[in-house]
Amino acid sequence: METKVIVNKDSFLEAYLQDRRKIVEEALHWYLPAENNTPPEIYKAVHYSVFAGGKRIRPILCLAAVEATGGDLASATPVACALELIHTYSLIHDDLPAMDNDDFRRGKPTNHKIFGENIAILAGDALLTEAFVLLSRTEKIKFSAEKRLAVIQEIAQAAGIAGMIGGQTMDVLAEKSKPDADVLYEIHRRKTGALITAAVKSGAIISGARENKLQALTTYGLNVGLAFQIADDILNVEGDRELMGKGTGSDAALGKVTYPSLMGMDQAKEKLRQHIDTAIDSLSIFDKRALPLRLIAGYVMERKG
Amino acid sequence: METKVIVNKDSFLEAYLQDRRKIVEEALHWYLPAENNTPPEIYKAVHYSVFAGGKRIRPILCLAAVEATGGDLASATPVACALELIHTYSLIHDDLPAMDNDDFRRGKPTNHKIFGENIAILAGDALLTEAFVLLSRTEKIKFSAEKRLAVIQEIAQAAGIAGMIGGQTMDVLAEKSKPDADVLYEIHRRKTGALITAAVKSGAIISGARENKLQALTTYGLNVGLAFQIADDILNVEGDRELMGKGTGSDAALGKVTYPSLMGMDQAKEKLRQHIDTAIDSLSIFDKRALPLRLIAGYVMERKG
Repeated sequence: METKVIVNKDSFLEAYLQDRRKIVEEALHWYLPAENNTPPEIYKAVHYSVFAGGKRIRPILCLAAVEATGGDLASATPVACALELIHTYSLIHDDLPAMDNDDFRRGKPTNHKIFGENIAILAGDALLTEAFVLLSRTEKIKFSAEKRLAVIQEIAQAAGIAGMIGGQTMDVLAEKSKPDADVLYEIHRRKTGALITAAVKSGAIISGARENKLQALTTYGLNVGLAFQIADDILNVEGDRELMGKGTGSDAALGKVTYPSLMGMDQAKEKLRQHIDTAIDSLSIFDKRALPLRLIAGYVMERKG
Repeated sequence: METKVIVNKDSFLEAYLQDRRKIVEEALHWYLPAENNTPPEIYKAVHYSVFAGGKRIRPILCLAAVEATGGDLASATPVACALELIHTYSLIHDDLPAMDNDDFRRGKPTNHKIFGENIAILAGDALLTEAFVLLSRTEKIKFSAEKRLAVIQEIAQAAGIAGMIGGQTMDVLAEKSKPDADVLYEIHRRKTGALITAAVKSGAIISGARENKLQALTTYGLNVGLAFQIADDILNVEGDRELMGKGTGSDAALGKVTYPSLMGMDQAKEKLRQHIDTAIDSLSIFDKRALPLRLIAGYVMERKG
């Protein structure tokens, strides 16, 4: 007689995310520049934002992609952490008075509110730079130099003008000229989609995955990234202020164009669902090792904060 | 009978610098992200500062180190350009209102004066990121992936917290607590010395130079970098305003601690000469292919702007 083990998917995912978060947090502590070689102000500012309680979704997606493609998780950890450093730098710079001028992030005062604008600019610059220190380190890395260069290229492109910085520029300028749906898509694709796509693609590159799997993960990453941004915009309207750690309704107050404001809440939710469906469908060529990637896509749609 | 060709060292150096500058300028045009894939505002802002008339001393030193160690100049060009992108990003961010609040740089309005603070922050971020896109590109590169990773590690470390960003942080904070000679040395070493050292070391890594030559070039780079900074401080007091492209006397007006203000002009000049002597002495193990490196050291001491 067959024995069936029934696992609740929510509790599995919760335990999985918790475990992965722990790996990432510990590695981040390990990889950040040591206190004795760092001016104390920049050390404190960098640590403040890196350990301000992020969800670590980019590093976790990277590790989940390594798992789905049968690669070595331990060697992928520096890459996963580098993605988080780049994400954190982008938040610090986005929050600056000259940019979005945000006072709170994840329920805590933003970096420049605590350390001043000059140190916040430098802390962002430092995190971006240290990401590449991490990506090019040689200690305990088991994948080839060629693959590592490909990972650096992938991540740098995603963070650069063609990706995140291009998206942020468009976003800053969109405050003056209201974007239409096409421009909004392009902003989301660059600003959020590019780095999330690079996270899963990097995982696949580390494993040496074939072209069809790289392609599938590119589709997955882009759609999860776009969904993530739409979910954020929806939560900004309907979310729980405490879970979000920042004010809800702030987009509307700023007159910011989002999917909900552009096409209404129902259509925005439909769009979100479509992206998640496309992301999950793209994983059909993978075996059960892609279960975490499948569940994370669902989590992006259902998250409350 | 022996025929002696007498070459005037100044006119040789002048022609050399001009030629190398041309190679670097052309390559920068080639390597910067294309206009069609870039939001126009960031494209303009990046081009404005990259082509604002810099001396290109870091890329030229990198190429001169490749030459001195017998490597392939053409494959080193992306590395040389990446160094200039990082240098340019650091100038844009240093000039920001929250940092040094400078209105002019090289005789032209600073980036944020033309494009606004938000675009200037993003342009700096973009240049730093695109430097790593360039360093990890694979097209037409003839040196191994291992060497390329070593170059990325060298440059990222030099630009990061242990180097340039650490130095800039110390410099920003030094405005409050007047530094002594040791702290000032440490600021210069990190802020200017680290990236110039990385420039020459990268050249040597590309060529596959042995440890003794790497060591010698590290000494050379550090001393030229320190000399460069002291020369800058001296020019800020005695320089020709037009050649400098920025106001002289600005350090004194800001009450900024420099070598001239700390130890007097004569001692500062003596210090400058010592660094140049050490730099040139370190090249004794090299043959005549190191002539440009020797002459550039002299040029740093004698430059007028």
